[in-house]
Amino acid sequence: MTQKIYPKKPIQVSIIGASGYTGAELLRVLSNHSMVQIKTITSRKKSGKHISEVYPNFRKKIDLVFSLPERVNFDGSDVVFIATPHGVAMKYARKFLERGIKIIDLSSDFRFKNRETFEYWYKIKHECPELLKYSEYGLVELNRPVLEKANIIGNPGCYPTTILLGLAPLFKSNGQQLIDTNLIIADCKSGISGAGKKLQSSFLFCEISDNMKAYGLPEHRHYPEIVAQLQKEKIGNQKLNFTFVPHLVPMIRGMFSTIYTRVLPEARNTDFQNLFEEFYKQEYFVDVMPSNNFPETRSVKLSNRLRIAIHKNAVSNSLIILVVQDNLMKGAVGQAVQNMNLMFGLKESTGLEHFSAIP
Amino acid sequence: MTQKIYPKKPIQVSIIGASGYTGAELLRVLSNHSMVQIKTITSRKKSGKHISEVYPNFRKKIDLVFSLPERVNFDGSDVVFIATPHGVAMKYARKFLERGIKIIDLSSDFRFKNRETFEYWYKIKHECPELLKYSEYGLVELNRPVLEKANIIGNPGCYPTTILLGLAPLFKSNGQQLIDTNLIIADCKSGISGAGKKLQSSFLFCEISDNMKAYGLPEHRHYPEIVAQLQKEKIGNQKLNFTFVPHLVPMIRGMFSTIYTRVLPEARNTDFQNLFEEFYKQEYFVDVMPSNNFPETRSVKLSNRLRIAIHKNAVSNSLIILVVQDNLMKGAVGQAVQNMNLMFGLKESTGLEHFSAIP
Amino acid sequence: MTQKIYPKKPIQVSIIGASGYTGAELLRVLSNHSMVQIKTITSRKKSGKHISEVYPNFRKKIDLVFSLPERVNFDGSDVVFIATPHGVAMKYARKFLERGIKIIDLSSDFRFKNRETFEYWYKIKHECPELLKYSEYGLVELNRPVLEKANIIGNPGCYPTTILLGLAPLFKSNGQQLIDTNLIIADCKSGISGAGKKLQSSFLFCEISDNMKAYGLPEHRHYPEIVAQLQKEKIGNQKLNFTFVPHLVPMIRGMFSTIYTRVLPEARNTDFQNLFEEFYKQEYFVDVMPSNNFPETRSVKLSNRLRIAIHKNAVSNSLIILVVQDNLMKGAVGQAVQNMNLMFGLKESTGLEHFSAIP
Amino acid sequence: MTQKIYPKKPIQVSIIGASGYTGAELLRVLSNHSMVQIKTITSRKKSGKHISEVYPNFRKKIDLVFSLPERVNFDGSDVVFIATPHGVAMKYARKFLERGIKIIDLSSDFRFKNRETFEYWYKIKHECPELLKYSEYGLVELNRPVLEKANIIGNPGCYPTTILLGLAPLFKSNGQQLIDTNLIIADCKSGISGAGKKLQSSFLFCEISDNMKAYGLPEHRHYPEIVAQLQKEKIGNQKLNFTFVPHLVPMIRGMFSTIYTRVLPEARNTDFQNLFEEFYKQEYFVDVMPSNNFPETRSVKLSNRLRIAIHKNAVSNSLIILVVQDNLMKGAVGQAVQNMNLMFGLKESTGLEHFSAIP
Repeated sequence: MTQKIYPKKPIQVSIIGASGYTGAELLRVLSNHSMVQIKTITSRKKSGKHISEVYPNFRKKIDLVFSLPERVNFDGSDVVFIATPHGVAMKYARKFLERGIKIIDLSSDFRFKNRETFEYWYKIKHECPELLKYSEYGLVELNRPVLEKANIIGNPGCYPTTILLGLAPLFKSNGQQLIDTNLIIADCKSGISGAGKKLQSSFLFCEISDNMKAYGLPEHRHYPEIVAQLQKEKIGNQKLNFTFVPHLVPMIRGMFSTIYTRVLPEARNTDFQNLFEEFYKQEYFVDVMPSNNFPETRSVKLSNRLRIAIHKNAVSNSLIILVVQDNLMKGAVGQAVQNMNLMFGLKESTGLEHFSAIP
Repeated sequence: MTQKIYPKKPIQVSIIGASGYTGAELLRVLSNHSMVQIKTITSRKKSGKHISEVYPNFRKKIDLVFSLPERVNFDGSDVVFIATPHGVAMKYARKFLERGIKIIDLSSDFRFKNRETFEYWYKIKHECPELLKYSEYGLVELNRPVLEKANIIGNPGCYPTTILLGLAPLFKSNGQQLIDTNLIIADCKSGISGAGKKLQSSFLFCEISDNMKAYGLPEHRHYPEIVAQLQKEKIGNQKLNFTFVPHLVPMIRGMFSTIYTRVLPEARNTDFQNLFEEFYKQEYFVDVMPSNNFPETRSVKLSNRLRIAIHKNAVSNSLIILVVQDNLMKGAVGQAVQNMNLMFGLKESTGLEHFSAIP
Repeated sequence: MTQKIYPKKPIQVSIIGASGYTGAELLRVLSNHSMVQIKTITSRKKSGKHISEVYPNFRKKIDLVFSLPERVNFDGSDVVFIATPHGVAMKYARKFLERGIKIIDLSSDFRFKNRETFEYWYKIKHECPELLKYSEYGLVELNRPVLEKANIIGNPGCYPTTILLGLAPLFKSNGQQLIDTNLIIADCKSGISGAGKKLQSSFLFCEISDNMKAYGLPEHRHYPEIVAQLQKEKIGNQKLNFTFVPHLVPMIRGMFSTIYTRVLPEARNTDFQNLFEEFYKQEYFVDVMPSNNFPETRSVKLSNRLRIAIHKNAVSNSLIILVVQDNLMKGAVGQAVQNMNLMFGLKESTGLEHFSAIP
Repeated sequence: MTQKIYPKKPIQVSIIGASGYTGAELLRVLSNHSMVQIKTITSRKKSGKHISEVYPNFRKKIDLVFSLPERVNFDGSDVVFIATPHGVAMKYARKFLERGIKIIDLSSDFRFKNRETFEYWYKIKHECPELLKYSEYGLVELNRPVLEKANIIGNPGCYPTTILLGLAPLFKSNGQQLIDTNLIIADCKSGISGAGKKLQSSFLFCEISDNMKAYGLPEHRHYPEIVAQLQKEKIGNQKLNFTFVPHLVPMIRGMFSTIYTRVLPEARNTDFQNLFEEFYKQEYFVDVMPSNNFPETRSVKLSNRLRIAIHKNAVSNSLIILVVQDNLMKGAVGQAVQNMNLMFGLKESTGLEHFSAIP
């Protein structure tokens, strides 16, 4: 990651779907970003309201009013962030690209190169499949070269970010097979903000607090996203058998992924701690902890950092990778802004230097 | 489980180490038990104090004062519950057995038949190894016949209870191998009360709330306990490769274990849902949910019930077993009282009929 | 409170509005009540579903299906509990009373003797104002004689219960004025279950957790209920100036009311601790703590107990009364069942002996 | 608040007692401060450890090691923050002042001009009473002129900050009496981080979560601090009768104070909303909300802002003032840094521009 030349004038940004949790987080991060000017924010539910009526934390800090998306002229925007449920970004994409407006889609519409995979898992027809070949999967640490030149980015899901960055060093090791890809299990625990501001009784305080559960079996929608990316990572001729179980934990923000795999006999002398440290040594946002450490979700809260610890068991030859992130930051908004910085030639950490508070 | 004849007079119970969370839970359950009279409660830290000064929820309900254990004459007790850290029960055991007092030890002193295993993992010398052959592992659903006649019971750890009951139907299936025992992973999440009332800064509210983490790697003390019991369950000639990672989740009570294994090719037509339902159909405290369900920890809070759901993936042949319990009840005190009921010929559910409140 | 003669056969109970939090709590308490048989439960939203599909904690414990209220024949019910929002009970009341079915209404339809007060505060027309003179305010400790004979009871609101029981000993003291009724302030803090299972974004976990706020100013609907009862309590010729501010605190259950008043000069030698202890000495459900104590909400969780501590400041002559209850129990369901016991000549504590767990 | 000229070189800062929650928060804020260089941090318990071993959120962000205070040469420090319990700052003060090092004490040693008051409430002898007349009470909005020139500042307690800023506009109104000072009640609710990282069983997660209580009666140590400042504010000839009850609420950060008073007959036409808005219109850190609003604690989390809403009841003539702050920021560290900025001629908001995230 090398420092880039700053553009002469601020990037003009619009946000579609700005009243949900991801939208609010985009507003918070972008309004602290030295090279950004927020032009327009849209929301169907809150159109006409001042941002501070919906998010009083922004009182006297952000002076914007929600617009109805139909009423907005997006011309003059350099980039539009789309923070809606899936199925919306695909309606805007062609128009924006034609006008030279870059797109960072935080939903799933542009995460798949393969149209059939998207349509199978999301049960809707893709409205601009011809654009999929131009869209890039915005996991910066793994895809930087193509993202720098992309005009449309499918920002990764929160679970995939932890799992892919937790496994990447094992897959990209000069062609040598290190782990048994027939045995990869990701047991993931998410804070509740991952569900957004959705009005569903199962997300009420009295349903979540002092309680926990699994969900999403047999087929969570992040499953094909993870598999598609793992397969792309050239895991050789090996078969991939990947299991993924998400859980809900009573915390607002934070994601904890515990990844289990097994070391192949021929790789038993590998220094995995060193492998991970080397792999990420240039990465500002990925922190590999020293051996025998346990990352906590709060240690990355409100920050774009993802923290990893590796535990190898010499007897069972199991490798356990612990990954934490803030699901709204590296798992969504922070990563989206990291992508924007990359697209516009800025230093990747611009506006993302914040670190967590304890307690 | 057949109904038993009630004894003529109440069981006289003493509790050693009654001021911790397990002790308080024993007091709560036993004081609601129709066939029990609590004789003595001891606590070094709180000796001389009335129970209601330490636990105001017991005001006007329980009228007992903590004694110093050295000052107590345990004669006249029918059974003593020991709710201390490990290393204490072994000091009392011989004396109690000689006087005809039964022992239910909630610590680990009597969970292992093998002295070396205990001493290796707990780093202390066992003071009465000759008693280990008489002690029985108090997992009622699996060991009922020997427990009925036992005079000394090692009450199971909280994690082992969920894992062993979650796996038992797979191991005890008429000699047929169903799963690949070379691949058993238990990803467990515990509420904080599992740590007891220990004064450690990592258990302060501000350290735990809105946060989560893993711990206990590489060698949590419940690991050998689980392995010893799994091996006892005659898993055939297969090798056992078992991985166990415990996590702390910001809730007071509750344990959620997600167990991963893989179905052997020759067992792919097995109806696992039916297998579990049949295995536990006589068990009052084990509830196998219908297929496609997700158990929640709160659904068993304050109850002695353990709830299981089975998810099989036909593509990957993975079997995912979800198990919830209240770590202080089925994971500790409820199970201990279930053992007492069994030892004294009572109906197993006596005093344990309570079910959970939502919300 | 004297022990009563048990009826020969179980009380037949129906519940209208059984799928909300109050309804679920009624089900939990009544299904543990030795003299009750639950006949019918209704719910518009969940009609046709088995109770265990909505509340899995009741699996294998309660075997009931929700009915549409229109489809139910309530004949044969001895009493109907109405656990709906206001405006529903008034539609059923006349019909039930004509058929000899007693009514315990947990909403506000029958809390006011004065129709205008109800209509002013609740903004709807009362549909059976002629019944208001027969209905009684179900605060047992203050109104026992009339409640024993009542056929229709308006079960008190949660906030009023704490405030009225917190103030009652000061008002009923043989005609002597003890406190300045021109200065009574109740600062109340409630757990979130008080809001019910209402689908409103402000009750989502991510909105409530790690946060608190006041609400309900200038005019919370419990204000007139409290004032009406205080005025009934014959406070003499003094003017009443009462201020009430409710707050939401991130806990599921529990209510904490801090009541401030000032001792009149002529009452400065009164032993208020003794006054409260004497006033409640016969009451099973009201616990006056020893002086210099602080009640905690968890000490009454899931129990019908209300706990009070009195703090007098000799310099400022202020009297501070701290009151805790479980808002769903003494603040709603427990009190309703206490009323039922009274109406049917049962011992008041029948089915309500449960006490709280810590932790 | 006018913008100041920046000093040529960074302020050299040391922190005594840097391993507690206040210390960690100082580190977080000061390491983001553009004009500060942290020179030394001390801790008895953690001396020799790298900050990131104790606070992993600082990994790769702050590179400092805790020192034993005795081993530190503080020469070269421009200012020392003292974040210890009371009784420590008084041991360092004379020495530091002699060497031209400014002091910002976050404990109570320098909050009282009157030595007797301190000694009565804190039960220890003050070791440098002769310095009290030079120390100033660091509530910037009320004492700015003297603080600009101060060399030693007693940083206010968290509760006093909310109460004094909540009442100040009522006291400083051109000599006219507006409220009945014989009736001022502050019902305050605090998050748990206010207790620091103290190892006390009552602050364990299992004791605090899903629970609340009052404490600190009859005499919390912040009481005399509030009274001393209120009396200083020239409230005329009126008698002051002030009542203060603190409560603990299960949240990490956040303080909510509900202040009750009554409007004098001669002031009933006062526009209190306008009075407050005018009083604070120049203040960056105090936000008066529009009428009919309710502040939430999370709206100021991690920020130095204090947010106020005023509710007047025309019938009862009561005035209710709702005040929220982050107890570790405006209630401690943020205010301390605001004081530092003032002392060194910086813009007051330097390093304190951060605003809160929701959720």
